[in-house]
Amino acid sequence: MKLNEHYFELTESYLFSDIARRVEAFAARHPEQKIIRMGIGDVTRPLPPVVTAALEEAAREMGKRESFRGYGPEQGYPFLRQAVADYYADRGTVVSPEEIFIGDGAKSDLGNILDLFSPDCTVLIPDPVYPVYVDTNIMAGRSIIYLEATGQNGFLPLPDSRVKADILYICSPNNPTGAVYDRRALQTFIDYARENGAVILYDAAYEAFIADPELPRSIYELEGARECAIEFCSFSKTAGFTGLRCGYTVLPGELIFDGHSLQKMWLRRQTTKFNGVSYPVQRAAAAALSPEGRGALEENLSYYRENARILADMLKNRGVFYTGGRHSPYLWMRCERGMGSWQYFDWLLENAGIVGTPGAGFGKNGENYFRLTAFGSREDTIEAAGRMLLL
Amino acid sequence: MKLNEHYFELTESYLFSDIARRVEAFAARHPEQKIIRMGIGDVTRPLPPVVTAALEEAAREMGKRESFRGYGPEQGYPFLRQAVADYYADRGTVVSPEEIFIGDGAKSDLGNILDLFSPDCTVLIPDPVYPVYVDTNIMAGRSIIYLEATGQNGFLPLPDSRVKADILYICSPNNPTGAVYDRRALQTFIDYARENGAVILYDAAYEAFIADPELPRSIYELEGARECAIEFCSFSKTAGFTGLRCGYTVLPGELIFDGHSLQKMWLRRQTTKFNGVSYPVQRAAAAALSPEGRGALEENLSYYRENARILADMLKNRGVFYTGGRHSPYLWMRCERGMGSWQYFDWLLENAGIVGTPGAGFGKNGENYFRLTAFGSREDTIEAAGRMLLL
Repeated sequence: MKLNEHYFELTESYLFSDIARRVEAFAARHPEQKIIRMGIGDVTRPLPPVVTAALEEAAREMGKRESFRGYGPEQGYPFLRQAVADYYADRGTVVSPEEIFIGDGAKSDLGNILDLFSPDCTVLIPDPVYPVYVDTNIMAGRSIIYLEATGQNGFLPLPDSRVKADILYICSPNNPTGAVYDRRALQTFIDYARENGAVILYDAAYEAFIADPELPRSIYELEGARECAIEFCSFSKTAGFTGLRCGYTVLPGELIFDGHSLQKMWLRRQTTKFNGVSYPVQRAAAAALSPEGRGALEENLSYYRENARILADMLKNRGVFYTGGRHSPYLWMRCERGMGSWQYFDWLLENAGIVGTPGAGFGKNGENYFRLTAFGSREDTIEAAGRMLLL
Repeated sequence: MKLNEHYFELTESYLFSDIARRVEAFAARHPEQKIIRMGIGDVTRPLPPVVTAALEEAAREMGKRESFRGYGPEQGYPFLRQAVADYYADRGTVVSPEEIFIGDGAKSDLGNILDLFSPDCTVLIPDPVYPVYVDTNIMAGRSIIYLEATGQNGFLPLPDSRVKADILYICSPNNPTGAVYDRRALQTFIDYARENGAVILYDAAYEAFIADPELPRSIYELEGARECAIEFCSFSKTAGFTGLRCGYTVLPGELIFDGHSLQKMWLRRQTTKFNGVSYPVQRAAAAALSPEGRGALEENLSYYRENARILADMLKNRGVFYTGGRHSPYLWMRCERGMGSWQYFDWLLENAGIVGTPGAGFGKNGENYFRLTAFGSREDTIEAAGRMLLL
């Protein structure tokens, strides 16, 4: 039996285990010190009452013979696909329910979508980046070209027309840099994709953090995107679904390559290798998009946005270069005193008892950068900002 | 951009849409006739109270800040992995929690596991078969050899030592034939796999239907299986989880090929392309394995088993050759009067108002066979058996 040899080309990431080890050692040396964790990418606010009520109601439904539901449609129930279409429509973006596929999270769909493309495709991925884009392509044996995101381009690199790629990744608002592409920049990607017959995988997991109506929340706000872009979205960060698991992927009918519809191929992939998202979770997601749910999501967003503002003010005050912090839960700061990212990690832990994420964990261009997140509690965020101001 | 061309080698299955079309036409011609559906593979019994209570409790937990849970371990929570290990231990099979991976259903895991193997592998798949085994391998471009399951071998074919395959599929109790391999037969597969350096993908989704302690419910009851077999299991059919979505896959530590651990490769696959099963669903699954839950599952099983017995008695009475019906929710009957499976479908619908599944939909060896299932209500099952006895 022959294994998929590409798995052995993956580099083992020790990022989070290294962080845990260093924090543990510090805690052992300083048992009195309260450690504040500003590195987590997970949410801390609980599910809104309208969401838990929908979960409970669906549980009761499943317990009665007359309302029990077995296998659902692999692409999601019509009630949720319609709710997502309405969520787009309210921002003036037309996406039909048939183009929306409910999945168990953007991470799964971003990995699984690659099934549709040949291993011979060349992939363009920004550096630094959410490591999953890189690893899923290495697993399939694809060539990767990196798009250099740096302080010089504000971590918003554009594709170079001399570079030929078949699959382009965009994450906006970006993880880890918090940077957000404007309309003009996104149009450059779309023009590149259409000229080169390439497909854009657009990760919009953080779209709800965008407050400025001038900034695009969906790639479909741009001309020509329906012919070249797949959009990935999630209930994780706004509705607190990191533990519930629900997201959605949009494949417009116009995505035709060599005469083949990507939407039809994805439907075939999902009906063959997936059995739909848990029914109570789909009800919970629909509740999150109801008028009452939208109010609760706005509250969560305001809370995290205010945390981000507190951290951004602190960085401004210290005169540190950073991206993000607005329209994003992430702050990507240049390490102070010319330190490397692991050096800064140790220094910040030692001198302020604060844990962040070393930028080097996201790619070589992260080497002198450091990620803070706005997902902590208000009290912790204020205390962390206060401690950093005193450094 | 180059597409995965293997998708275009898939044959479109019109099985269920063809069935729906013919049933609709019949209903239009005979509006007075009550149609009984004996073809469904979905369960009809609602979730047991202990399971819905666990779902509701977890929903409430997620609504409070102090008990909220975000991202969980990709391979499942320790409480559920331990509960599954205990479920095995109660039958005398030792599987450690570290070898158990919680997933969102056997269908997903059976498809996704193929990521670990080279497209150059040759696959041995029984015919007739659950179509997903075939389609997932076509998508990856693998060569498929069919293992002929026929009336002559009781639909329990054994591997031929002259045929060289790298990946072997076994489904026991089988879908669609209901046939169950005994220990001796399974040992033949294991010996073949170990001699040929092959891996066995063992689909045990229907294991709980086995009542005879002499028949193996897990492949790990057999000598040498830990070195060559991956087992896939599900809460779908026993606990009514077809709409909740939870299953588990077992990869023993001894699965080492070319010096590489399949367990470690699968962990890498899951941490990269999956984010774990919904927390409330994992709590529901653990409740299904609690003492109270086991009682409820036994009740479900007894109900479906009695349905199967009713159908089996009817077939015996009519002198029809069939497999399954015991240790399985499926009955695989030879079409009466020498009919082909679609011909029999039409005949049974026309003369008895009963809908089943034509065997041809599962492979060429299903041509003269027909599948009935025990998942309907007791009343429908009795009425269907009565109508068939009068034919």
